Amino acid sequence: MSLFEKHNKTLKRALEEISNRGFWSPYFEMPSSKVYGEGAKEKATESFQSQCGKHFEIDGLKSNTYLGSEVSPYGFDLNIKYPAIDADTLIKDALCAMQEWKKIPLDTRAGICLEILDRLNQHSFEMANAVMHTTGQPYVMSFQAGGPHAQDRGLEALAYTYRQLKNIPTTSRFEKPMGKNPPIVTNRKFVVVPKGISVIITCSTFPTWNSYSALFSSLLACNSVIYKPHSNVILPIALSVKIARDVLAENGINPNVISMIISEDRAETQKLVKDEHVKLIDFTGSTGFGDWLEKNAPQANVYTEKAGVNCVIVDHFNDLKAMGRNLSLALSLYSSQMCTAPQNIFIPKDGIISNGEKISFDDVAAIITGSIEKLLSVDERAVEILGAIQNDGICQRVKEADTLGTMLLPSRDIKHPLFDNATIKTPAVVKVSAKDKERYQSEHFGPVILLIETDSREDSLNVWQDTIKHHGAITAGVYSSDEDFIEKVEAIAIDEKVNLSVNLIGGVIINHSMAFTDFHATGDNKAANCALTNENFVSGRYSVVTIKRDA
Amino acid sequence: MSLFEKHNKTLKRALEEISNRGFWSPYFEMPSSKVYGEGAKEKATESFQSQCGKHFEIDGLKSNTYLGSEVSPYGFDLNIKYPAIDADTLIKDALCAMQEWKKIPLDTRAGICLEILDRLNQHSFEMANAVMHTTGQPYVMSFQAGGPHAQDRGLEALAYTYRQLKNIPTTSRFEKPMGKNPPIVTNRKFVVVPKGISVIITCSTFPTWNSYSALFSSLLACNSVIYKPHSNVILPIALSVKIARDVLAENGINPNVISMIISEDRAETQKLVKDEHVKLIDFTGSTGFGDWLEKNAPQANVYTEKAGVNCVIVDHFNDLKAMGRNLSLALSLYSSQMCTAPQNIFIPKDGIISNGEKISFDDVAAIITGSIEKLLSVDERAVEILGAIQNDGICQRVKEADTLGTMLLPSRDIKHPLFDNATIKTPAVVKVSAKDKERYQSEHFGPVILLIETDSREDSLNVWQDTIKHHGAITAGVYSSDEDFIEKVEAIAIDEKVNLSVNLIGGVIINHSMAFTDFHATGDNKAANCALTNENFVSGRYSVVTIKRDA
Repeated sequence: MSLFEKHNKTLKRALEEISNRGFWSPYFEMPSSKVYGEGAKEKATESFQSQCGKHFEIDGLKSNTYLGSEVSPYGFDLNIKYPAIDADTLIKDALCAMQEWKKIPLDTRAGICLEILDRLNQHSFEMANAVMHTTGQPYVMSFQAGGPHAQDRGLEALAYTYRQLKNIPTTSRFEKPMGKNPPIVTNRKFVVVPKGISVIITCSTFPTWNSYSALFSSLLACNSVIYKPHSNVILPIALSVKIARDVLAENGINPNVISMIISEDRAETQKLVKDEHVKLIDFTGSTGFGDWLEKNAPQANVYTEKAGVNCVIVDHFNDLKAMGRNLSLALSLYSSQMCTAPQNIFIPKDGIISNGEKISFDDVAAIITGSIEKLLSVDERAVEILGAIQNDGICQRVKEADTLGTMLLPSRDIKHPLFDNATIKTPAVVKVSAKDKERYQSEHFGPVILLIETDSREDSLNVWQDTIKHHGAITAGVYSSDEDFIEKVEAIAIDEKVNLSVNLIGGVIINHSMAFTDFHATGDNKAANCALTNENFVSGRYSVVTIKRDA
Repeated sequence: MSLFEKHNKTLKRALEEISNRGFWSPYFEMPSSKVYGEGAKEKATESFQSQCGKHFEIDGLKSNTYLGSEVSPYGFDLNIKYPAIDADTLIKDALCAMQEWKKIPLDTRAGICLEILDRLNQHSFEMANAVMHTTGQPYVMSFQAGGPHAQDRGLEALAYTYRQLKNIPTTSRFEKPMGKNPPIVTNRKFVVVPKGISVIITCSTFPTWNSYSALFSSLLACNSVIYKPHSNVILPIALSVKIARDVLAENGINPNVISMIISEDRAETQKLVKDEHVKLIDFTGSTGFGDWLEKNAPQANVYTEKAGVNCVIVDHFNDLKAMGRNLSLALSLYSSQMCTAPQNIFIPKDGIISNGEKISFDDVAAIITGSIEKLLSVDERAVEILGAIQNDGICQRVKEADTLGTMLLPSRDIKHPLFDNATIKTPAVVKVSAKDKERYQSEHFGPVILLIETDSREDSLNVWQDTIKHHGAITAGVYSSDEDFIEKVEAIAIDEKVNLSVNLIGGVIINHSMAFTDFHATGDNKAANCALTNENFVSGRYSVVTIKRDA
């Protein structure tokens, strides 16, 4: 049985689901020994521990230089060293591999990509450790977002790409009737060709979840991929690259279709992304470097997800308690180090009405801060929600949060029961005036939450729209029991092109972005120029060459 | 019956044909009175004549300033003046219209677009006159390329856009099973939103054929369109805009969904394309302005078709007579003023082998020049192939052709039997050495054909590849009876991403690019950054905003 046949059922279902966009998650999200194998979790933890302090070897990626200085946000050095190969060699090898890869038929390529996804899924527990101890995510999130949910996103992008490519006939017969004369007949071959080398630059928080869409779309469209992982979050990418190369090699394909560059030299990265053979660049990270890439790599199609300012509007709303519960999780999960986490909460300074009763700004604020305190009241439980702080810059930001306004809930350090040196902080909640634009109209990445006093309900709409227009957003939320108000919010979301969550009080929070259901970002405001995954995310990753001939 | 129902059969067939890419042309290509109505041709010619010397009025496009100084390449001033409205007013009106247009359901928008195409089709004879007396195309070509073939391209793009938009569900229900607990349920709305204003900058040779793909894709994706026609080729666009606005108004829609800017001020065009509300720019024309647009309108997605250098390789080939016949038409049609026309013909200096016999370079050249002479030997017939020369720059280029190398066939002026002052010239054919790169590695737009002496068959491949790599090409051709050689040519076409015609000797010439069959350009070499029409041409013209809510 070919790999395509082996995985065809999954692909078929994926092709249905991208047109439904209801719920579907093919890779099981719970770290269950029933699904992933008895002892798989323990074995993966041992394997991670034994990996620390060693060279991470990948067949075929050899170098005299090994680099790496990852530090776990849970408080220890990983001491793992990775083979550092120079950009020129990687490019040469990637081009050579691409010449073979592009000749492999679509269904065969799809089968191999699906097998890579399946293999990644089998290694989800290993990925959990790798993600946890580089990004600082709590364990279950590391498993889910690093493993099955990232694989879902990869499969989703694979399905979009497959559908587009399958819609291009490989041959056609042109037969033009010419009345009484014989028809004019020509035959055509349509050859799908790669754009070139696809460079994927990954971030320090969701290295796999934010990159598998690009990986599997680029691969299926015949391109070779070179990963450039964030210098403190290499292991999840190294693991992905190793697994993918193993599958390629097992199937007799030059594994240099996928590789990675490890470099401590910023100039080398800049050289790589400007190389004439690099035609696709996917980037998740800071606005600064994202903007730089958009301007400085004109030879490539550049897909960026950068910083945004996610906001929630609190309007007249009847179920404030449920709102507080839902928001507290949205604000606390992984210490607000998610690009989907809300940062700014707009509340009218004169308060709102709930069930006919006036609730002051301070009372609404107290519901939110109280819910956060309650959610994080037990340290053992709190650490499984908060995870650890990814880097010192975020600690600094938390420390300086009180300079932004009136501190409503100070951040608190928590001791992790298992990791003594882990950096764990509860969110700081600060009250800010809507007049102080410069304080809230920028991203304060990490656990710094701003409750913003607006002049009125209408003013909330204005400052929100102004914020998205100038700074972009990945998500937005509103709580309102007034359908007319919601309609206005929806109209602004549509005008400013931001995805909107309305009145979430149940098991789904604003941060939630799930493959096959949620388009991650709209790709049409300043926070991101692409969406995961839509037609535009995949259509620039290949071209079609036509060869025609008289029949 | 709604317009969607009225045209649904056409749309359905179009959706099938974009996946087949065999022969299909829904709009009848012959200027036939049986199809287009008895007397339609004569009436259209009268209408054109009575239009000359007058103001061209378009309902709702009023101005105090009327501009226009078109000159027919057939030797007379059109003296038609068009309403010139400033960019700011057009943008304001287009934005206002877009706010309504985007709320109209997809199928209704599709029905209106299909009605516009149908109405354009009914006016094909009027378009023929407009195109002929601005571009200089011969009459039948003006009818076909200006009318039905342009409409085909519009419908093709409409079908690609419709398919993408139809694949996005308008709503979905997310229902995640939670074991023994109740499932998590959320509802989603997916709203397709326009990118913004779509500016279409048209060229002086194929104003409608090269722009209807953009027009109908942009319109169906909810955008407003502002046309910026070439200053000497306004009438075909004014006619298109008028017809489209009529259909919109008849259906109660603000006609400012489509308008045009007439300006003699280069600065005003530059201001328009840099406006923050302009999010899509389609351009056909010079490399200089195309490159400028790609760099200077970062707020927009820019789709360009610029200059390329189209080449033909002549290798060992048995049917040289048929080759000569086919090539002579390719080189003569509309005086090589087609972006698909070949310019450079590479022939080994030691000649080739045909049916086992050695044929010298000069003999191959003689077959080509002889075929051209024969094709154009009768003036009355020649003018219907050559059309007229579009502008003085081209005349100058023909005049200086002998400075490029040895003149093999000088250009000859022809007198048009109907238009005394028409500028009509047969192609100049010049022999150039492959060493003189600077002479043949640039576009000599118009009837200047270069026969290039290469060192060998292999050298032909090298110089051809080098030419495409550095200057791009819309088309390429090869004549070879050696399948191994053809394989090498195909491999280069695939590497350099150029569409290739092999051994065309019948009723199809290299220049031929037909909707529903040929992708016009690959969009992946220096001649053009987009193809007509593929998924990538349409996927950047809209975004999707998701609004989600607990169920």
